Amino acid sequence: MTSAAGRVFEMRPIGVVRSPYQDRAQVPKGPCAEHRAEGVLELWPELEPGLADIEGFSHLFVLWVFDRTEGYDLVARVPLDEETPHGVFASRSPRRPNPIGLSVVELLGRDGPRLRVRGVDMLDGTPILDLKPYLSSIPESSLRRGWLAEAEARG
Amino acid sequence: MTSAAGRVFEMRPIGVVRSPYQDRAQVPKGPCAEHRAEGVLELWPELEPGLADIEGFSHLFVLWVFDRTEGYDLVARVPLDEETPHGVFASRSPRRPNPIGLSVVELLGRDGPRLRVRGVDMLDGTPILDLKPYLSSIPESSLRRGWLAEAEARG
Repeated sequence: MTSAAGRVFEMRPIGVVRSPYQDRAQVPKGPCAEHRAEGVLELWPELEPGLADIEGFSHLFVLWVFDRTEGYDLVARVPLDEETPHGVFASRSPRRPNPIGLSVVELLGRDGPRLRVRGVDMLDGTPILDLKPYLSSIPESSLRRGWLAEAEARG
Repeated sequence: MTSAAGRVFEMRPIGVVRSPYQDRAQVPKGPCAEHRAEGVLELWPELEPGLADIEGFSHLFVLWVFDRTEGYDLVARVPLDEETPHGVFASRSPRRPNPIGLSVVELLGRDGPRLRVRGVDMLDGTPILDLKPYLSSIPESSLRRGWLAEAEARG
């Protein structure tokens, strides 16, 4: 065990997601669900300088908080494959030791500290922790998708 | 301003990165730097059940903490394009409001709570916050990479 074990890092939202979804039941489920919903990433106005030049990127990573989830499970059942439990780190279950969500959205436009995006799968009011440019991708040909590929093939 | 503005979320490491890099100067710089270094993602032993089934995925997202950075800048100068400052959210600068790093690594093998991976760009001892399967990619043809593409073309 190392000295990192007892550390605590405090994270503060940089803004919130404006999304059409008020409730988890409204969000398309499963990793193959198509997320075409449009929404807004609304940063606090004082952070607007941090968005300089972001318009040049077509896609962004959004790091956010599952703030309507309490606690976690190391082994999770997920909608796509309810029969078989999977390790939480091999799933996108919201009930994670650190409840951080990660989404890739398409940047449609910017209006000061507000980014219009497509592909939100977060609930309205979700706290945002960070935005990063989406830079590169692993070629499909070298990607393996584990139990998900099998569950999709069965479904 | 919404009620999210004053919230604080406490994150606790789930493990640490074992990497050949002791010092930032040793890490290949710039977003096009090839990260081929091998390392180990070492989870706390009690979290091992959370890794069930992870072997089926070829690539993982690693969320981690820039724990050797203090403070942040909204506008950052980055190695690839030192002349022009860019918004921190349009860069991968470590000096971010929430100092969370995001890497994609290739999973080489697993030994209990330890994952052998390729592509580490973190320092040895870096606290890990989360692991997620890397599921899909945006096709290269629909990706725009903003100031980075321009800086690369110049360099």
